[in-house]
Amino acid sequence: MILGVDIGGANTKIASSDGYTGSFYLPIWKGADLTGILKSALDELCPDKVGVTLTCELADSFLTREEGILHITEIVSDLIEDALFFSIEGEFQDHNAVVTHPEKFFASNWIASSIFLAEEFGDILFVDMGSTTTDIIPICSGKPLAGMSDFERLKRGELIYTGLLRTNVATILDKVEVDGYLCRLASELFAITADVYLLLGKIEARDYTCDTPNAYADGGGKTVEDASRRIARVVCSDIQELGMENIHRITNEIALAQKNEIKEAIDLISRRYGLRKVVCGGIGEFLIKEASEELGLEYILLSGHYGKEISSVFPAYAVARMMDVE
Amino acid sequence: MILGVDIGGANTKIASSDGYTGSFYLPIWKGADLTGILKSALDELCPDKVGVTLTCELADSFLTREEGILHITEIVSDLIEDALFFSIEGEFQDHNAVVTHPEKFFASNWIASSIFLAEEFGDILFVDMGSTTTDIIPICSGKPLAGMSDFERLKRGELIYTGLLRTNVATILDKVEVDGYLCRLASELFAITADVYLLLGKIEARDYTCDTPNAYADGGGKTVEDASRRIARVVCSDIQELGMENIHRITNEIALAQKNEIKEAIDLISRRYGLRKVVCGGIGEFLIKEASEELGLEYILLSGHYGKEISSVFPAYAVARMMDVE
Repeated sequence: MILGVDIGGANTKIASSDGYTGSFYLPIWKGADLTGILKSALDELCPDKVGVTLTCELADSFLTREEGILHITEIVSDLIEDALFFSIEGEFQDHNAVVTHPEKFFASNWIASSIFLAEEFGDILFVDMGSTTTDIIPICSGKPLAGMSDFERLKRGELIYTGLLRTNVATILDKVEVDGYLCRLASELFAITADVYLLLGKIEARDYTCDTPNAYADGGGKTVEDASRRIARVVCSDIQELGMENIHRITNEIALAQKNEIKEAIDLISRRYGLRKVVCGGIGEFLIKEASEELGLEYILLSGHYGKEISSVFPAYAVARMMDVE
Repeated sequence: MILGVDIGGANTKIASSDGYTGSFYLPIWKGADLTGILKSALDELCPDKVGVTLTCELADSFLTREEGILHITEIVSDLIEDALFFSIEGEFQDHNAVVTHPEKFFASNWIASSIFLAEEFGDILFVDMGSTTTDIIPICSGKPLAGMSDFERLKRGELIYTGLLRTNVATILDKVEVDGYLCRLASELFAITADVYLLLGKIEARDYTCDTPNAYADGGGKTVEDASRRIARVVCSDIQELGMENIHRITNEIALAQKNEIKEAIDLISRRYGLRKVVCGGIGEFLIKEASEELGLEYILLSGHYGKEISSVFPAYAVARMMDVE
């Protein structure tokens, strides 16, 4: 059995070519126990081969992305001697290749998904909304055409650093409408998109897999009341002063603004490459589907094709499947 | 000697009516040692009376603002039995009054400054830019006319939750211009305004009194290189890939956007009340001065009038001075 591993800054995801999946909130910048998670997966699954893709090198515990890649691949290689790493050139390479050219292994997980999907679906726009970011990848003639670094993709509108769970709502909107005023937001990390989608009923507490902004405190839990309190704090208020009606209004406005930002980018990239079919993936798949529908684009749901579990760990699955063929 | 104390969410400031000042980074939500700081100030200064103003009740370690006020005033009263608390009605009250009507003691520090300044300068627009927020307070006929809660002030544009040090740069701008592209920003807490003003030479490392976003990590320091690295990370990059020229360009763009937001609000409020004279205070005084000049408004610098130290802890000083008269 082949195991694919996708190590992000906040989450590590694991999938086997035959359908096992696992997702772990494992914040690299907090020194999370990557070794422990990998070890227990190895003990449980005893894979024949392990393929790894990384995006965690941007974590702000590293001085440079190079340092990040070298540090994490060393942890992996110490544990799994013959682990192979997926490069931005679309190849599986051993640890020596990573040490020689670490820059070829920055942020490769969307490339793994894209190359795999190209074989399956042909020319498509692949849009994958995760907990933290949204990838918008044009795929034409079997090749992902997005920029080759996160910075390049940000510039071209192919990466939007906005996600379904971890995004600070104060980065989404400057002002919300309340009581007939346009009210500025507090710029603290008071509430995140997981609070928004929990209140809107789009996710449940068990889907809220990251930490809450005030996890350390009383009221820092994942109930509707906790989330309401956090949303109220974004306008320097509390439930008592603001009221639930205003809280729902603000929540809807934030969700709409996030969808509109993604929609605008999908519209731009789909026109740029003449792509009319969107493949939607990630835990924010439902939101990408809505945006695609509203834009009049065709869409395919990864969850419909592969099941919800595989859709939510897709790069890991793609790595495992591609390695299986090699 | 009379001591004034201003307890904010992130900073506690102390001033005596005869000119002693102290400022302490004391994040309430992290359970900072308020008692210890107050105790050593009392031991050193032996004040006859102590007056307190609070804004820390919004910290997300509290369920409600009421809980915040009651918790912090109890800590103060346990230590200083006859401490008096400044209310939003402009009166000094004992702890019993706080327990009976905690809501009268929410966010009163700008009211203390304003009432004190009204006596000194008459009709003015008082603009105080601190580490975290900017107050824009119209004062007419001896009375501050701003809304009476942070939420009301946010709605009316009299509170902008943006400051000189602690503000996440991703809440200031959505996109920056790089290499001819409009590049979206990463929505993490990767860099703050203290990084921006450090790189622009507007503050020095010793003025960077809050934690850096990655204080826990190598490279989480307060050098120009550390700050540059954090700014690069905001576009998912590092110094190597982005280059110092781009880093400076982005830094300037963020600073300009922050100034423009404050300028727009000053313009609005000054017109609303027909006020043409701005009193500028706080550690961001220089920025308020620039904004006022660009708007063609008269301005007075609190630091010119009272000295830089008093200007940066002004609400505490105002409390001490007003209590001295009582």
